[in-house]
Amino acid sequence: MRLASFRRRDDPSGAVLGGEIRDDVVVAFADGESVLDRLRSGDRRPATGPVLPLAEVELRMPHPPPVLYGVGRNYAAHAAELGNEAPGEPLVFTMPPTAAGHPDDPVSRGRLTTRLDYEAELAVVLGTLPSGEVGVAGYAVADDVSARDLQASEEQWTRAKGSDGWCPFGPWITTADEVPDPHALRIRSWVDDEPRQDASTADMVFRVPRIVDHLRAAITLRPGDLVLTGTPAGVGHGLRPPRYLEPGQVVRVEIEGLGAIRHAVVP
Amino acid sequence: MRLASFRRRDDPSGAVLGGEIRDDVVVAFADGESVLDRLRSGDRRPATGPVLPLAEVELRMPHPPPVLYGVGRNYAAHAAELGNEAPGEPLVFTMPPTAAGHPDDPVSRGRLTTRLDYEAELAVVLGTLPSGEVGVAGYAVADDVSARDLQASEEQWTRAKGSDGWCPFGPWITTADEVPDPHALRIRSWVDDEPRQDASTADMVFRVPRIVDHLRAAITLRPGDLVLTGTPAGVGHGLRPPRYLEPGQVVRVEIEGLGAIRHAVVP
Repeated sequence: MRLASFRRRDDPSGAVLGGEIRDDVVVAFADGESVLDRLRSGDRRPATGPVLPLAEVELRMPHPPPVLYGVGRNYAAHAAELGNEAPGEPLVFTMPPTAAGHPDDPVSRGRLTTRLDYEAELAVVLGTLPSGEVGVAGYAVADDVSARDLQASEEQWTRAKGSDGWCPFGPWITTADEVPDPHALRIRSWVDDEPRQDASTADMVFRVPRIVDHLRAAITLRPGDLVLTGTPAGVGHGLRPPRYLEPGQVVRVEIEGLGAIRHAVVP
Repeated sequence: MRLASFRRRDDPSGAVLGGEIRDDVVVAFADGESVLDRLRSGDRRPATGPVLPLAEVELRMPHPPPVLYGVGRNYAAHAAELGNEAPGEPLVFTMPPTAAGHPDDPVSRGRLTTRLDYEAELAVVLGTLPSGEVGVAGYAVADDVSARDLQASEEQWTRAKGSDGWCPFGPWITTADEVPDPHALRIRSWVDDEPRQDASTADMVFRVPRIVDHLRAAITLRPGDLVLTGTPAGVGHGLRPPRYLEPGQVVRVEIEGLGAIRHAVVP
């Protein structure tokens, strides 16, 4: 199923509901249940609440992740384009929950960088599995927006990657049972409709189970935590000459079978 | 005031209450209010609930921080003892909420490191101020437990610093109004009663407002977030020869006026 959070375009209160997307409608969960509630409970029964045409709602981030983890240099061609070697172990970093962004909301460049860049990524969503354990419950599309100047000047990537709203994700969570092989998905990005990244998740250096195990060896993962799995070649910083994101531009990221997110860049 | 979370030693349910320490008693907040509720509301009125002798309770972490930030190499003598230069900007890193630990609970070394180390640190607690803004609401004592081998082999410090329970803090939060100068406090640590660190928070390279501003330039800080402000010289990795923490040892960290935490190391 496809888990989504949304608000009705005609609802002035802006209340966000959780539910499930089926074809061109969204079915709300009954009793005000949220997507995070569902990730925690592991309940995958069909939604039974009000039905709304998809055209009448605005999709919001599927849920607020308690923590976001990322993996650097997890596609060899991307590591090479930035002059790095692929690491011998997953290179994991941590982002605060305030880094999460809505799938289609503008991303603010802010005042700290002149080298803002996009990174199309497969996002892994942790949740309670039928076994009762916490594991990979689903997948989504993310942009791991990064400031290349801060990434170079600041040894830890707290601000280079974890700034407010720099991890838009969505448009929904496709549950793991509907993704037979997460390592066989075409992953692409565009800036202003110009193709930039076009690769397959088959090219990951470390695959999803290995990344999750690597984190889990030290850290208890919890329902709702998000793990970004790295970006393929084609980021702006790797182009010759480099091309960074400017206010007014629009980034689109699409992963086969998982949908697409699309966000503007604003000052 | 001194904000604390505690459980009654004679309560088999283990229920954790929020309250305020006054001399040798703890006064619970009325209506089940928690310390995190108080950090969010900014309410600093005296607690009015049940009064318990301090000897009859066990102190728990003052609140569950949504995010923990740390600052590396923020005392010049400590940067030097590890062969580093003091950075030109605060070197901030991020830890997940699962890294927070209770002030006196054992810290597990785990299987990933043979070079576990202590770091006595002044912890800054964010909360809602009387002005309604989020700012420095109080201070506590923390141990930024670190794996020196992982810190060397893993470029981002996710596992080297952010492993489960590796940031015990407490024993309570002293509100900022009772700390006239957070940069004039003696900060000390011991391993098995042997003195290891003994310095003053006056020696910080970057002081509290500068660190908070540095984070805030990119990230919205929220009530309950914790910012560790770096450790002075005297960590085990800096001794000649180095002396790492072994299961069975006990670490104690004390900061003038803020109390002390004390934790064992277990496998």
